[in-house]
Amino acid sequence: MQTLIIVGHPTPAASATQQFLKAAVQDLREINWHELADVKNHFDQQQEQLLLQKSSRIVLQFPLYWYNIPNILKRWQDQVLTETLQAKLAGKELGIVVNLGKAARDFQLGGSVGFSLSALLSPLAAMAKHFQMRLLPLFVIDRFGYQTQEQRQHLLVAYQQFLELPQPATFAQREDWFLAKLKEKKLQATGQQQQQLELIEQQLLARTADLADLQAVLHPVKEDDEAHGR
Amino acid sequence: MQTLIIVGHPTPAASATQQFLKAAVQDLREINWHELADVKNHFDQQQEQLLLQKSSRIVLQFPLYWYNIPNILKRWQDQVLTETLQAKLAGKELGIVVNLGKAARDFQLGGSVGFSLSALLSPLAAMAKHFQMRLLPLFVIDRFGYQTQEQRQHLLVAYQQFLELPQPATFAQREDWFLAKLKEKKLQATGQQQQQLELIEQQLLARTADLADLQAVLHPVKEDDEAHGR
Repeated sequence: MQTLIIVGHPTPAASATQQFLKAAVQDLREINWHELADVKNHFDQQQEQLLLQKSSRIVLQFPLYWYNIPNILKRWQDQVLTETLQAKLAGKELGIVVNLGKAARDFQLGGSVGFSLSALLSPLAAMAKHFQMRLLPLFVIDRFGYQTQEQRQHLLVAYQQFLELPQPATFAQREDWFLAKLKEKKLQATGQQQQQLELIEQQLLARTADLADLQAVLHPVKEDDEAHGR
Repeated sequence: MQTLIIVGHPTPAASATQQFLKAAVQDLREINWHELADVKNHFDQQQEQLLLQKSSRIVLQFPLYWYNIPNILKRWQDQVLTETLQAKLAGKELGIVVNLGKAARDFQLGGSVGFSLSALLSPLAAMAKHFQMRLLPLFVIDRFGYQTQEQRQHLLVAYQQFLELPQPATFAQREDWFLAKLKEKKLQATGQQQQQLELIEQQLLARTADLADLQAVLHPVKEDDEAHGR
């Protein structure tokens, strides 16, 4: 699966968020990191359309400016997208990675913004519908500048999984993804690191086995509930 | 009341809709027609902000491109609007004049677009809220290219009233506006035209008197209904 990340930021090199996300994809395969460049106020329509056609998952990644996409991304839409793309984009996935300068909780009724991200970004949902693309659940980065190191580690993993896994991803898929990443790391690691990673892997596998047991118990209960419309 | 019309169209001179609307404001006073120019990919922030401050009603006028504002208007937002404007824009009115390439009825659940204009344009509503501006009811132009001459005459009047009257305008305000416009026309008209306009004015006044009678009858009925929560 080829994933295209379209970075719609006027100055990605100056954005701590975009630099963090860029570092997060360095280890990933099948990712095409594409920063929109604002130099000549013009996009090569043919080249941009080819990029879209080559990809099965297209991710629009941007900060929210005035409760909307930044103008560089809007210009890309206005100059690149044509009706002829309809047949070529149908069935592809559209992901949205949006980072916020205000707290995510402000984007609701009674919040300081008062509009949900789902409402504010509905033009992109309408575009996805137009091209018969499948819109993935929003990936929201809640004020990166305020995040702790631990929150950023969680963000990194969630972002990588958002890019690499089928969406929405099941718990099992996320676990398998973790184990596969651990195996990769082990191959690259030195002696002592390898032992530590081995330990983590064993703990993770044990937990996965526990969870599988638990699910086997819960599964019939849930089915029974659903049959009774509970 | 000074009204600023910000035309967010990449090539207004080539747009039949924008040219029609431009002709419609020729007779109006206190209107500042401001076409955003895309020549140098840059707006003079200070000058644009001064224009906003001078106006009590600010109208954003644009075609819907990819279910959103055109990139020229988004760039204007990104380059011109600053937090410092907050105190200066509070209490002003924000109008939205949007013209559609698809039928207005498509913008609803089950329609081909599937999203309402109120949802798609919510970023502008969030902006109005941000600046404590009063958002006027949307002014929607439903596929200008398909409109008949009669529909366009209605559009012209509705557009002029949208710009000149308090919004939302009452029936009485719209009637008074008509009579005032007729008086103006009469002053400029030649002999035979003047007689025709006189006739129209008399008919309109008679109808207005009838309506006033009708309202006097309906008013107590309505109050009674409302008192009973019907």
